[in-house]
Amino acid sequence: MKEYVLNLLPVKEEEKGIFERIAPGAEHVYARSSTVTAEQMGQATVLFGWPRPERLKEAVRLKWFQTMWAGSDEYAGKVPEGVRFTTSSGTNSRSVAEHMLASVLALCRGLPGYRDNQRAKVWRDGGAAKTLLGSTVLVVGAGHVGGVFGKLCQGLGARTVGLKRSISGLPDGFDEIFPMGSLNELLPRADVVALILPHAPETAGMMDAERIGLMKDDAILVSAGRGSVLDQEALAEAMAAGKLWGAALDVTEPEPLPEGSPLWEIPNLLLTPHVAGGMRLEITRKACIELAQENLRRYFAGEPLINEVRVR
Amino acid sequence: MKEYVLNLLPVKEEEKGIFERIAPGAEHVYARSSTVTAEQMGQATVLFGWPRPERLKEAVRLKWFQTMWAGSDEYAGKVPEGVRFTTSSGTNSRSVAEHMLASVLALCRGLPGYRDNQRAKVWRDGGAAKTLLGSTVLVVGAGHVGGVFGKLCQGLGARTVGLKRSISGLPDGFDEIFPMGSLNELLPRADVVALILPHAPETAGMMDAERIGLMKDDAILVSAGRGSVLDQEALAEAMAAGKLWGAALDVTEPEPLPEGSPLWEIPNLLLTPHVAGGMRLEITRKACIELAQENLRRYFAGEPLINEVRVR
Repeated sequence: MKEYVLNLLPVKEEEKGIFERIAPGAEHVYARSSTVTAEQMGQATVLFGWPRPERLKEAVRLKWFQTMWAGSDEYAGKVPEGVRFTTSSGTNSRSVAEHMLASVLALCRGLPGYRDNQRAKVWRDGGAAKTLLGSTVLVVGAGHVGGVFGKLCQGLGARTVGLKRSISGLPDGFDEIFPMGSLNELLPRADVVALILPHAPETAGMMDAERIGLMKDDAILVSAGRGSVLDQEALAEAMAAGKLWGAALDVTEPEPLPEGSPLWEIPNLLLTPHVAGGMRLEITRKACIELAQENLRRYFAGEPLINEVRVR
Repeated sequence: MKEYVLNLLPVKEEEKGIFERIAPGAEHVYARSSTVTAEQMGQATVLFGWPRPERLKEAVRLKWFQTMWAGSDEYAGKVPEGVRFTTSSGTNSRSVAEHMLASVLALCRGLPGYRDNQRAKVWRDGGAAKTLLGSTVLVVGAGHVGGVFGKLCQGLGARTVGLKRSISGLPDGFDEIFPMGSLNELLPRADVVALILPHAPETAGMMDAERIGLMKDDAILVSAGRGSVLDQEALAEAMAAGKLWGAALDVTEPEPLPEGSPLWEIPNLLLTPHVAGGMRLEITRKACIELAQENLRRYFAGEPLINEVRVR
């Protein structure tokens, strides 16, 4: 039976030929998540993109699905039995890492407060600043994004320490690497603590009041990945009491952040609405397309797929 | 006659001994700019720090004065005849460069707008972002600060092009270097244009309407150095018409920026109150102290002083 490649990625006209040359015997159909028909879903044997999770059950012939994003949690329990599942993990690492770096440097230089002053037409020197030069950056979750963030921080003169579930050698971007269990020992050493963890039972609430308390009084906390990792109330309480130089959260629990959350109003906390990743840079889009092409080649060559995971 | 070293720098107790070992035969007096007496000024043969310019005339025995900052313009016409004058140019380069980088990255990721939304408790995706990776950064004024800023941008994957009054080889931090006269040709190539120029007759108003017009429509402008370099009204008009991705000004003309200036309210313009440099980081303070020590050594050894300039 002929393979039917349903491609919901943001593919440019000139990129379509590459997919078709990789799988010349397959039928290639391009659509958008918002307009893809039930018939197209029903035909698909290979699916690339970001369909709404509940629509996967329409894909009765599906053999392999590659999501456009790094996370797999939204498809948990939604990928039909027997269907292979791959993520696009790594493709937006640079974007997330740059957003985190931008946020940390903004806090180092007090930019959120200066922005507030600007809106109030107040010209006022905010005093001391911080630098990454000579600082220690602790990356909790030393995966794809963590490695890129680590490398950017190293480039600015920081010493980077990574924490990872399973260690096999020193990953790129890190000066030291430790197992997750070393978190409590390492927190007091860090000038910047970066949380880059997926949502999972073992990460939920991991950064709690006690651990926030272990941080240096003038450290910076930055969180990407998933908001459930951080105890937001504990953070708000600690910061209200003067703990931390600043914090930058791109993820919260839940999202959008409810209007009643104290996080909105903490002056030295910078809040962004889960925009570190996503398709915001051309380099992200390109990496995503190229990963789909490489995995399509592997799929037809019978080679192991990159980023294959189990989410059932 | 005994030399009298009047030290108005932020010297730590343990650093005083170093000055005294460098010049054991001199009298060393430590004071603050705000409390230094007319008698101390009258005794000084060597002066380090940042006295009010009009107080220099009290220093009737003065032979050499080293200011704490990179700029010399505030002492123009105030350094008495026959007194040697040195600046601390270079000592806050890292601080200024990091502030500029923080500002550029903040604009790349739309952080000023996200901050405004945060204050209004609005959770809204701002769409596309920018990256320095693969971008071209034009540094107008490839001196100390420009070189450090260039190097930081290179580390993030940018190609850096410098403009300098007089060129002797490719300075560190740059992929290309051109004479100032090439500005108009280079502006259309740049994704980021960084102004790092002192106030001078030939730099005043240099970045005018025409040159702003030569920039890419989605470029970023960042300005440190001195505000007089930029035609602020031309910038405000261009940005109101949709020109530029964003701008970050740490310097304005005059300072503080008058309440009536349109710059305060441009949403994608980030304004900071001349805080890129200054004594905001311990590395800046240390570099400043160390330069004073090295120049003191040179002074007594009869060697050429670092950063000696003429401001009369």
